[in-house]
Amino acid sequence: MTTPAAPIVLFCDFGLPYTGQMKGRLVEELGSHAAEHLIIDLCHDAPSFDIRAGSVLLAAHADDFPLGSVFICVVDPGVGSKARKPGVVYAGGRWFVGPLNGLFEHVLRRWDQDGEAQAYEIVWRPTRLSATFHGRDLFAPVAAGLALAGNQGIEGLVPLKAEEIRRPDYTDDLSQVIYADGFGNLMTGIRWESLQDGDMIEVEGRILPRARTFSDVESGALFVYENAVGLAEISANLGNAQKSLGISVGTHVKIIKV
Amino acid sequence: MTTPAAPIVLFCDFGLPYTGQMKGRLVEELGSHAAEHLIIDLCHDAPSFDIRAGSVLLAAHADDFPLGSVFICVVDPGVGSKARKPGVVYAGGRWFVGPLNGLFEHVLRRWDQDGEAQAYEIVWRPTRLSATFHGRDLFAPVAAGLALAGNQGIEGLVPLKAEEIRRPDYTDDLSQVIYADGFGNLMTGIRWESLQDGDMIEVEGRILPRARTFSDVESGALFVYENAVGLAEISANLGNAQKSLGISVGTHVKIIKV
Amino acid sequence: MTTPAAPIVLFCDFGLPYTGQMKGRLVEELGSHAAEHLIIDLCHDAPSFDIRAGSVLLAAHADDFPLGSVFICVVDPGVGSKARKPGVVYAGGRWFVGPLNGLFEHVLRRWDQDGEAQAYEIVWRPTRLSATFHGRDLFAPVAAGLALAGNQGIEGLVPLKAEEIRRPDYTDDLSQVIYADGFGNLMTGIRWESLQDGDMIEVEGRILPRARTFSDVESGALFVYENAVGLAEISANLGNAQKSLGISVGTHVKIIKV
Repeated sequence: MTTPAAPIVLFCDFGLPYTGQMKGRLVEELGSHAAEHLIIDLCHDAPSFDIRAGSVLLAAHADDFPLGSVFICVVDPGVGSKARKPGVVYAGGRWFVGPLNGLFEHVLRRWDQDGEAQAYEIVWRPTRLSATFHGRDLFAPVAAGLALAGNQGIEGLVPLKAEEIRRPDYTDDLSQVIYADGFGNLMTGIRWESLQDGDMIEVEGRILPRARTFSDVESGALFVYENAVGLAEISANLGNAQKSLGISVGTHVKIIKV
Repeated sequence: MTTPAAPIVLFCDFGLPYTGQMKGRLVEELGSHAAEHLIIDLCHDAPSFDIRAGSVLLAAHADDFPLGSVFICVVDPGVGSKARKPGVVYAGGRWFVGPLNGLFEHVLRRWDQDGEAQAYEIVWRPTRLSATFHGRDLFAPVAAGLALAGNQGIEGLVPLKAEEIRRPDYTDDLSQVIYADGFGNLMTGIRWESLQDGDMIEVEGRILPRARTFSDVESGALFVYENAVGLAEISANLGNAQKSLGISVGTHVKIIKV
Repeated sequence: MTTPAAPIVLFCDFGLPYTGQMKGRLVEELGSHAAEHLIIDLCHDAPSFDIRAGSVLLAAHADDFPLGSVFICVVDPGVGSKARKPGVVYAGGRWFVGPLNGLFEHVLRRWDQDGEAQAYEIVWRPTRLSATFHGRDLFAPVAAGLALAGNQGIEGLVPLKAEEIRRPDYTDDLSQVIYADGFGNLMTGIRWESLQDGDMIEVEGRILPRARTFSDVESGALFVYENAVGLAEISANLGNAQKSLGISVGTHVKIIKV
């Protein structure tokens, strides 16, 4: 059994037609190896203007993908500006390609305990570089190169010290809603493992009961549970928590310690 | 020419990021065979709380996919409860993996005439099983196993008698809207072949004319036709039937027999 | 290094479940070669009833995909009518399969300078042809055949003179909004290269400043820029231009020449 080719995972704050264009570029760059690498859409609606929330969201989902996976991460409001550098992070056995704007902080925080994480600035530039779509023009070709050959196969990566891109101002847990799905489930940036038995979650003045799964509470009832990526999530059984509470991404959530 | 590898088809009431996570698990399980099996998104918005409608919708779309296809079907409001069992159905030459909550009734009804359908409870459990996302943790690994090797390659499937999961209370046709698409077309659960020439469809007190295709009626006019999966569907030429009628999934539709 | 297999690109005014059904048919037709050909979703929300806008949108995105790519293009309000013919266009080294209703005009205009474009009517019909979903029943099998073997491998294509399907009434640039994305960015049908330095864009009585990228203007400010596919686009930095202006696809845009 041969090692499977590295999947390429798209984590973006946009979907079609842009992700389609990125895949076109990936196919072009992967050439005869294109069919070996699965390209997987993970997120098309990461919070656009809340990098901190996006960073938690990315880290929580990263280990759902095999070691060696290459993530193209595009939440990039500063695209085209001089202040924002494009880069690559290697952490936890996976590659992350995208803007060095804080988006990779929680990936580094989870997987840099041993100091084995690597960080690079991308100094390579393609012949054709649009001012507004580096996901297609810059990150896709770099990701294709990493998928084919790891960092050995890539020119134009300049090592950074991890500290240079770390964000010590970010907290380990983010006490707010970081994502709302189509059912109105509200994911928070609080790792369930950081809660003690008996800790409660309060939102909009309401203290929510904890439960294990939807059917453990009454129809329509709000509750908090450990979601499938290890974060505290607010839901309503057979209902829509987002509509019930009238809140959305960014709303503060309070942990009431035992 | 070798036999093509079994495609894996996702039929869910959710989309990203969840389908992305399921694909991550599929790739992990398929290992070096991952690139051979196409993973096809079929539905991300099956009706969430109307299993009966979802069952008709699934059955109507199943034979658009090659024999041997493995469907992962996740409309699962009872996820994590003891009452709801996870399972596998083999019918019409295709595999269906998901909750045994009625979702597979119409697949069995269409393809069990010869009593050749098979049903299994999944008793295998993965090391890591979240309380709320069996699509990723349980159904994806089982589907990967079936795609690789059929039921011979899977441990942890206990045969059931088909009767044990049948739903005799479901009717062959479902006289309601079961799905609304982005154009506002309203799919009903009525098989076109069950209608006689001259039978009419009435909805919200309006009797709708039958037509073959959009351009056969006036601009804006409502009509009923045999849609591309063999069900009666209500549409408006160059318009939006859902908005015109102000109805949605669940609305009753009446057949006026000749 | 072998030549990579031709990708198949979906450009439609619909998404799931229909694109899923098309992929099922593609897999069926590609048989043992299915896994070699990437199927890429490019657009699920092309303007439904504005073929002219869709034609510009398609042409602007086509060269994001490798030579040899086969596009299935389904913006097809006339599906099932006698007036509308199904066809194939070869232009710029890529194949385009879909209705001959004007959708391919701008592809031909961009890539037929040398008169090397080819056009065909599809006279082949599948055994099972629904009245309303030729994307699945007719275009997908033809596209699969083209992906496998080019036009040499396809029966049932009758050459047309390119003139027979050209639309001289279409202008080179389309002074209107042709697409709005999820951020509220408003793509126009005006090629940036057709503008002279100093030309201004006016919409809803407002003359908009030009900028290179989002961060070059104040937060919330509207501006016009060359987007990543070479068209003039109206956006707001950290804002939503569509909501700010209250306009959508079809709204006229005025070029104020220097």
